[in-house]
This record gives sequence, C-alpha cells and structure tokens, in this order.
Amino acid sequence: MPRYKMVLAYEGTAYSGWQVQPHACSVQGSVEKALHRILQSPIRIVGAGRTDAGVHAAGQVAHFDCDQVIENRKILYALSSLLPPDIRVMTIQEVPDSFHAQQGAIKKWYRYRLWQETCLSPFVRHFVTHITTPLSMDNLDRAARILEGKHDFTSFANIGTVLPHRVRTLYSIRRSPAPGGFYLDFEGDGFLYKMVRNLVGFLLEVGRGIRHVEEIPDIFEKRDRRCVGAAAPASGLCLMAVFYETGEMNEPLIHLTSQLGDL
Amino acid sequence: MPRYKMVLAYEGTAYSGWQVQPHACSVQGSVEKALHRILQSPIRIVGAGRTDAGVHAAGQVAHFDCDQVIENRKILYALSSLLPPDIRVMTIQEVPDSFHAQQGAIKKWYRYRLWQETCLSPFVRHFVTHITTPLSMDNLDRAARILEGKHDFTSFANIGTVLPHRVRTLYSIRRSPAPGGFYLDFEGDGFLYKMVRNLVGFLLEVGRGIRHVEEIPDIFEKRDRRCVGAAAPASGLCLMAVFYETGEMNEPLIHLTSQLGDL
Repeated sequence: MPRYKMVLAYEGTAYSGWQVQPHACSVQGSVEKALHRILQSPIRIVGAGRTDAGVHAAGQVAHFDCDQVIENRKILYALSSLLPPDIRVMTIQEVPDSFHAQQGAIKKWYRYRLWQETCLSPFVRHFVTHITTPLSMDNLDRAARILEGKHDFTSFANIGTVLPHRVRTLYSIRRSPAPGGFYLDFEGDGFLYKMVRNLVGFLLEVGRGIRHVEEIPDIFEKRDRRCVGAAAPASGLCLMAVFYETGEMNEPLIHLTSQLGDL
Repeated sequence: MPRYKMVLAYEGTAYSGWQVQPHACSVQGSVEKALHRILQSPIRIVGAGRTDAGVHAAGQVAHFDCDQVIENRKILYALSSLLPPDIRVMTIQEVPDSFHAQQGAIKKWYRYRLWQETCLSPFVRHFVTHITTPLSMDNLDRAARILEGKHDFTSFANIGTVLPHRVRTLYSIRRSPAPGGFYLDFEGDGFLYKMVRNLVGFLLEVGRGIRHVEEIPDIFEKRDRRCVGAAAPASGLCLMAVFYETGEMNEPLIHLTSQLGDL
C-alpha cells in the first residue's frame, strides 16, 4: 500500500491541539475528515509531533497509507477547498513505506516568539507571547548555554504520556531579534511533553531574575517537574520544521518555512 | 476643552468598518464605548479616514475633545484592558484644538499585500489577497506610472458620500517584494471611497492582460465607475499612516508602523 508524506501549516488558536480527542476539534481530525471525503475511505494520519492546544505549525509532517494512487496536484487542490483556512497541506509526496513521520524524525525545530512592546500589535496577537517586564538577556543567554546538550529533561516535562526514556539532546537554543521583540529557536533530537514551553517559562524567569543560572544542574538532577515554574503560553510557539535521515526530504521543508515570512 | 490625538492599529476582519453604523460592530464604536466607560461621559471621536469592512489599520489617527485632563499612560492602560484585542490605541497625546484628524491630514499611506504562492499561508490569510494567475509586472508598473499624479479619480471611486471635488493627487504607487508575494504602496493627499481597492483591482487586471495601459487616459476622461472592474478584496488593505502639517506629529506614526513588522 503506497505511503504518503505531507507537510502542513496551521494556526493552532482554534484547535484543541494536533491529536484527535473526543468532543474537541483537532488538527489531525480536521485533516483526516477532509482526506476521508476526498479518498472515500477512512484515513488515519500519523504526525511527527503532537502540538498542544493553541500551538502553531509552519512545517508539521505527517504520513498516511492509502490504497489509491494519488495525484498530488489534484489532492492538494481538493484539500485546500475542504480544509478550514487555518489549516493548509503545503506538499504531498509518495515515500517509501520505511518512512515514518514520528519514529523517523531525527531533528525538530521549534520557534518561540516574544513581544516586548508596551502595546501588543493586533496583527501578531495570536502568534506571540506578550512580556513587558525587563529581561536580562545576558542571564537568559547564559542559562540557554547550560540547558543545551544531552540531559535528562524530566524536570522540564509535564506528565503526559509516560515515557521510560527522558534523555534528549537539545542541539541549540538561539536568540535572535524579531519585530517587536525576539525569537527563541530550539533544535533538538526530540522534545518531551510541554518541554519547549517549560524551557521558555524558565528562561524568562532567569531573565527576570526570579530564577538563577546556578540552579540548573540541580534542576536536571532532581528529575521533578515541580522544580520549574509555569510553562510559557501556547500562542508564542510554532513547530517550524521536522528533519529526517534522507537529506533530500529536508529540502522542501526549509524552503516552505522560509516562505511563511515573519512568523 | 482639551483635544486629544490617538494613533490606532486594528485588524478589521471582524468589523463592519471604521464608522459607527446601526446594528453593526464598528471600530469607532468600540473605541467610543471604551472611552465612555473610562471617562464616564459620552465621547465622539473623529477618524482621519473611514476604512471599510475588513480593512486593517496600522496607523489610523483620530481625535476627540474631553473636558478632563487625561493621564496618557493610565488611559492607554485602561484602553488596553477594555478594548477587544483586535483594536489597540498605540499613542495618545494632547494637541492644539486647531488639530483635526480628518481635515488636517495632508498625506495618507495605504499598503495592499498580494499573496502569489499556490498555498495560502494560514498565518497571513486575514492580511493578504490571494492571486495565483500569472501577472506581467512590467505592465502593472507601467500602469502605476500613468495612474500617479493629479487626476479626477471619479472612475475609481464607488458611489458613497457624494463629493463635489474628486480630484486627488496620487504621489506614488510603489511595488516591493513581500514574503509570498508583493506589496503595493499608495501615497496620496486623499483617497475617494474604495479608491485604493479599485486601483488595485484595475492594476491586477492590467497585470493579467485583461485591461491595458493605453485605456487609462480614456478611463480618467469618462468619470464613470463602470469603466473599471471589481474592487480588490478588503483583506489585503491596510491604512499604514496619516501625515499632518506639523512635522513633529509624523514622528511617532512612522516609528510605530515600522514596529508592526511583516504586515
């Protein structure tokens, strides 16, 4: 049975998150419903990662199996007509059945956007987190350097799915200027439940002087979510891209995310 | 009685337009309601221009008179709490009572944003117009050069308020690249009802080869709206800034619009 890979972008504001849930409107459910109508048979899609309620994606990846031969252009057109305008399937392509959107992912890139002006621009309000307290960027950066690397991130993970293995490698945390504030970009081999938002929440507390860089080794050591404060809000977070072994497959992702402009 | 000048930004998607209308939700009405609650007396505000339903503003200007002394920081904070998040008053300042937001405006800057990718990004969907037909940018630019200048723009004005004087000076129409497409920036001493959207609609038809640059002198001559096709949609349009005689007053506007980033 042929396997297909999709790259999706969505504004998460109106959704309960990626994953299908009873009595809630999910991104996965909306896409499955549209594919069901187009292909006239129930389709189950597998996403690279489960974004939370209100979290956005510029380069989410998903795969599905389907016994029909799909004409890419036709199905993209049909999906654009059937999907709500806050979800778009940007590319679709046949892949070897060894491809797995979740298990095959070797790297993910999340971007968190902070807005620091007094007045929150109405144009970006769904895509940023508004923070007006002064921040020490030096301290924030110092904390970021210590959080990078291979660690047991249990203290930064909410209790969702219980995973036996909670060691992840955070390749980098980069800060860069954004209109009205700054971005925090996270690249890693995998992220635990709410890990990025917990890391951002902690980094902002370090920036505000409430928490300190020196506490980090102890926080890692304790493996206890209660060591860390509140998660940063969902609105500022966006899954930018998912990377796979096959170099060729990364190409369209990078290309597409750069087209999304300012986000 | 002291007069106050405000600079406002809003996403127009949810509103019937700037102007108060019976049985409809307007930007002006929302701001007046919030000011009424804060100042405990009915306030009438006068806007620089009446943006249509769905049209956005990054630098709309309005004034109002009020017999109270206003503390700028306090009132801005109160307005942020009371206004819906798609409307923001960005600055407020006392001005001489000779200042008039509408009559004193000497220049307005409107920006229209076109999206040309096959797939309409969910992040910009409320702020662009999606056009996938190929365009001759050379022809579009040639038409823009001929539309610039001092003309009777009756053929590009919808019949709204009947104005005796329909000669306006269009200082410039500039095209520049935008993520996913391009911007068209219009600067002029004043704009008639739906004039920018009618100009954009016409320019796109010239770009598509449906209308021709050579027709323009005849269109101006005829002074008949029926000479021109459909107006371009509201979503792509944004009032970026309003300029006044006093040089000093232009300062914050330019500053603020540049903070709004990608729009």
